[in-house]
Amino acid sequence: MKPERVSALFTDLYEITMARAYLEEGRTGVAVFETFFRKMPKNRGYVVAAGLEDVLDFIEGFRFESDELEWLAGQGAYPREFLERLREVRFTGDVWAVPEGTVVFPYEPIVQIVAPIHEAQLLETYVLNQIHFQSVIASKAARMVEAARGRKLVEFGARRAHGTDGAVKAVRASYLAGFEGTSNLVASRRYGIPPFGTMAHSYVQAHDEEVEAFEVYARLFPGTTLLVDTYDTLRAVDDVVELAKRMGEDFQVASIRLDSGNLGQLAKEARAKLDAAGLGRVRIFASSSLDEWEIAKLVESRAPIDAFGVGTRLVIASDAPTLDIAYKLVEYEGVGRTKLSAGKPIYPGRKQVFRRVENGGFVEDVIDRHDEAHPGEPLLVQVMAGGRRLPIGGLAEARRRAREQISALPAEIRALDPKADYPVRLGDRLSRDLEALRRARA
Amino acid sequence: MKPERVSALFTDLYEITMARAYLEEGRTGVAVFETFFRKMPKNRGYVVAAGLEDVLDFIEGFRFESDELEWLAGQGAYPREFLERLREVRFTGDVWAVPEGTVVFPYEPIVQIVAPIHEAQLLETYVLNQIHFQSVIASKAARMVEAARGRKLVEFGARRAHGTDGAVKAVRASYLAGFEGTSNLVASRRYGIPPFGTMAHSYVQAHDEEVEAFEVYARLFPGTTLLVDTYDTLRAVDDVVELAKRMGEDFQVASIRLDSGNLGQLAKEARAKLDAAGLGRVRIFASSSLDEWEIAKLVESRAPIDAFGVGTRLVIASDAPTLDIAYKLVEYEGVGRTKLSAGKPIYPGRKQVFRRVENGGFVEDVIDRHDEAHPGEPLLVQVMAGGRRLPIGGLAEARRRAREQISALPAEIRALDPKADYPVRLGDRLSRDLEALRRARA
Repeated sequence: MKPERVSALFTDLYEITMARAYLEEGRTGVAVFETFFRKMPKNRGYVVAAGLEDVLDFIEGFRFESDELEWLAGQGAYPREFLERLREVRFTGDVWAVPEGTVVFPYEPIVQIVAPIHEAQLLETYVLNQIHFQSVIASKAARMVEAARGRKLVEFGARRAHGTDGAVKAVRASYLAGFEGTSNLVASRRYGIPPFGTMAHSYVQAHDEEVEAFEVYARLFPGTTLLVDTYDTLRAVDDVVELAKRMGEDFQVASIRLDSGNLGQLAKEARAKLDAAGLGRVRIFASSSLDEWEIAKLVESRAPIDAFGVGTRLVIASDAPTLDIAYKLVEYEGVGRTKLSAGKPIYPGRKQVFRRVENGGFVEDVIDRHDEAHPGEPLLVQVMAGGRRLPIGGLAEARRRAREQISALPAEIRALDPKADYPVRLGDRLSRDLEALRRARA
Repeated sequence: MKPERVSALFTDLYEITMARAYLEEGRTGVAVFETFFRKMPKNRGYVVAAGLEDVLDFIEGFRFESDELEWLAGQGAYPREFLERLREVRFTGDVWAVPEGTVVFPYEPIVQIVAPIHEAQLLETYVLNQIHFQSVIASKAARMVEAARGRKLVEFGARRAHGTDGAVKAVRASYLAGFEGTSNLVASRRYGIPPFGTMAHSYVQAHDEEVEAFEVYARLFPGTTLLVDTYDTLRAVDDVVELAKRMGEDFQVASIRLDSGNLGQLAKEARAKLDAAGLGRVRIFASSSLDEWEIAKLVESRAPIDAFGVGTRLVIASDAPTLDIAYKLVEYEGVGRTKLSAGKPIYPGRKQVFRRVENGGFVEDVIDRHDEAHPGEPLLVQVMAGGRRLPIGGLAEARRRAREQISALPAEIRALDPKADYPVRLGDRLSRDLEALRRARA
């Protein structure tokens, strides 16, 4: 199921203003814009690139509709001839990008747009919005997957995500990073991701007796999960055991869910009660403000928890909700461009990233001009040519890639508390070109 | 311009599962669900309620479409008769809420839904998603407005907001809290909020000489803002001064924008240069990773900055990006309901909040059952009756309300670093009812 088209007005006003100036000047030569971040966010050893599919959907369908142009006309500053030219704008350029699921580091281009400058300029806001958010979430989710050591993770965050698109894209990004499913139905449907969910506390509360609620569920939904913490978790587990006895073979409940209190301790006690009653096949599912550190602690303490539901701290990426990502002009009409603003350098020229792999492990990245040669695999591949999309793999492939890429990282980079920076080297040519431009401006 | 309809599938799977169970049991009595948070987020003295308009749009248009039901049918667990009943579900209940722009505190219901339980249950995810995010952003924005002491604030965050809906609703919420405009065109169009924006660094970089870029803009867009930090801020200000001399009366540039470096110091030096050149009418606009503390520091140091552009730290509410908000069943068929999970109490019964005002200032809130009497203004008002919307004011009215409400707060609650908790008292009846239910379960 395809998402709805995103309006070309999902942009900042200055993109339109600049487009007018470029067109009036006849300054429509080929530009290279690159999307990259400068600083590794807190607690992160790597960033998982995500969001490209949505970016390509947007670029492919990019056009201003008549009602949008009418609205712009009413804003002043835009003469009719310009709006008519804007009406004709389609993306005619090339796009290079690192495939989704690739791990990336500071200053490495994630998306590279090569196109007439006004076309490329108009895409900035949406490209950043999607690459930024989906990469932030995929990177957070990957840490939870590492922490869970093979236990199943399910996304539960729609209520606390920032808006509807944030909720849906958080599902996509977390699935890409290794989650198994989601509670969010729009996202489940759009991406074919398995939906999960059984009961909330309200269902239990609406019954005078908790066990009555359990029995309705156990009969209506044989493989269900019963939420046991509404009043007293362990007493509710006793009730589940009693219910199993009463129902006999009809009792097919797959799991119980803990959602408050000391999850590790409760899981142990609940496990013991279930096992003692011959209910070893009933799994334990846990949720309640979990993040990668909580999950790691539970896993390390050998809490008998089989799956985790994660919401808020995943979908907000609570410890590091942003990347200092930018979309920057690095070349215009074949000439490298820079910016010398304090603390925000831009390395001039169109780039490539070369990743050196030894014995299946990543050992170093080199960023240099795209026409320099270095050993290693080039990370940026062409995904659009002359405005037409080239085949890129789907979400399942990106998910496999994320797993493989993260496995190939050194252990100290994969750690929840990374002990080192992954080695990224700037090619000599890049550094020389920046110095030359800096001197020319001095 | 109305936003697109939000699908009824923007929900968690368990809402559908519970709806089936409620219907199978014939448990379709009137429930009361309340949306509230339990803990004041970090650094906050108050929360500005927002998001109601979108919630009412959703509730009013709530229905499952045929293609959505078809998809559900393919998920198993949903017999045809249930899906046919789901097809007929519309919201037939009442909604009470605090008007947008009202300041609220822990345990105060923000939205209260009174409806057959399966109808009310199905709304949970979207109600929370919108009230949560918009209230988080309005509360962050209000702090920036306080810090700016009358200087103009413009929202610039679309690229770093979490998804497209997050970007658009952040504009709405920040305008509600007192921002003057936005760079985001979709949001500007949807809400009639003034759009702002002129040039990015890329425009300057695409020219061999910075001043050439300035001149094109000064001629094409007379009242424009020139971005002066691409290479060397103060040298660029000199170029602006030269350009003004060369253009004479044609030079109508309204402002310059600083986007990096020591903003306070640069603003002072730039102001001096402009004033010395008789350009006292050229304003100074500043941006660059601003938040309320940075703004307060600049304002307190008397930096001659006339307006601020704020992005990332606003739209993510970086210091406190979430509220522990919940949508909880508090009453079913006239009987108070609770939940005794560790650390997450629910006060039973349908509620009202009574706000005592003295000499125009807020002095205390009392939360109690809705049918108890207390001095003070009741905050929850009816906004929907029998599934039909009642007139509520628009965004402009909510914006005025937010200003008035915040002005009525004690200074120590309004402070960026609040020194006290606003006094909120639980009515005796509520506490007694919770105790009675607790004892009954013990």
